[in-house]
Amino acid sequence: MRIALCGGTGDIGEALALRWAYHTDHEVLVGSRDPDRAREKAEEYETELDSRGVEATVKGFANEMAADRADVVVLAVPAYHLVDTVEAVAESLDEGNVLVTPAVGMKRDDDGFHYNAPGAGSVAALAAEAAPDDVSVVGAFHNLAAGRLANLDADVDWDTLVFGDDPDAKDIVSMLAEEIDGLRALDVGGLANASEVEALTPLLINVAMNNEGMHDLGVKFH
Amino acid sequence: MRIALCGGTGDIGEALALRWAYHTDHEVLVGSRDPDRAREKAEEYETELDSRGVEATVKGFANEMAADRADVVVLAVPAYHLVDTVEAVAESLDEGNVLVTPAVGMKRDDDGFHYNAPGAGSVAALAAEAAPDDVSVVGAFHNLAAGRLANLDADVDWDTLVFGDDPDAKDIVSMLAEEIDGLRALDVGGLANASEVEALTPLLINVAMNNEGMHDLGVKFH
Repeated sequence: MRIALCGGTGDIGEALALRWAYHTDHEVLVGSRDPDRAREKAEEYETELDSRGVEATVKGFANEMAADRADVVVLAVPAYHLVDTVEAVAESLDEGNVLVTPAVGMKRDDDGFHYNAPGAGSVAALAAEAAPDDVSVVGAFHNLAAGRLANLDADVDWDTLVFGDDPDAKDIVSMLAEEIDGLRALDVGGLANASEVEALTPLLINVAMNNEGMHDLGVKFH
Repeated sequence: MRIALCGGTGDIGEALALRWAYHTDHEVLVGSRDPDRAREKAEEYETELDSRGVEATVKGFANEMAADRADVVVLAVPAYHLVDTVEAVAESLDEGNVLVTPAVGMKRDDDGFHYNAPGAGSVAALAAEAAPDDVSVVGAFHNLAAGRLANLDADVDWDTLVFGDDPDAKDIVSMLAEEIDGLRALDVGGLANASEVEALTPLLINVAMNNEGMHDLGVKFH
């Protein structure tokens, strides 16, 4: 399978690119608004993987080129760039492609981080509104500490919550999630259940901020 | 310490009453709007504890009588009864008493459960508005599966998220939480961080509804 990471030069994009290239045979395409930056980071990832004896080809492209070549397109961009990014790649998407959103809207005040739901109800709903009708939108990978996930020496034991209105698209994304060692995919239903998933990310940050020795957190449901 | 459980005849009230009576020497007072019902359930809890060789005195009272005798008052009532309950016990509270709210506002639709924040921003904020000024409000015990916690044969390994604006009151509640075997208390800051904690409860239910074999869930942050 070919996976494009739009915004693959950022924290969560880097983490997912490295993990998929490390643990799977999927082809990883790093996307960025700046194709030079994408190529530079893709080379960095290849070097990192090579140093661990993994010969993976990771290529960098402009976001729309990466999306054009991919089956699954992850929107690894901040919430405020999400709609722009969907619009930039929309013409590159074919029927059956899956768009994945890990984005969360947050605001910070003196007390901590808070979920900042957009008018659409959730960031995922925003992505779905902007996406072409024949492309399925799936939410996943919101509640992962990108820094720890990007460190291939770090073991993780986390759940990732997957939601969407197209069961087949959810299955594909859940499979991709579980191919990463230490990640378990849990189904949380349709896009209408997005906001509680997105709200978990500021909670993770608040827990990390207020408890000594806790950082780079994920969650496990049991 | 004396702990009153207003609504101690309901699910989470029963769970906390049994666990504190089982694992600690604190005096547990079961409150209800109906004092006969409170006494009946208190006797049930005593019988349950006695069958496990634990001689605990659990007494039932009207909510305001339970609150009057207690140091810590847990509002183990549904969100829509919270303000009524705070108003009913307000005159029984003294300076230095701690009010604990585990309540979450939820609504259900065809997709699942959703967080239903009241106008005050969170259920805890509602409780704080209704509480006397010299009483500290602390949020805790939201994200626990009451049925499993009430089963003294069940082992749990869960985090409970504790928030509030009075650090001393938070410390008391965190201590009470950690005296229950298998519960770890995590600090999530002030009352302004309540809504993300409260929103975790519908998410737990959605996870349980959509994943075979998963039920009576809690979470662990790591």
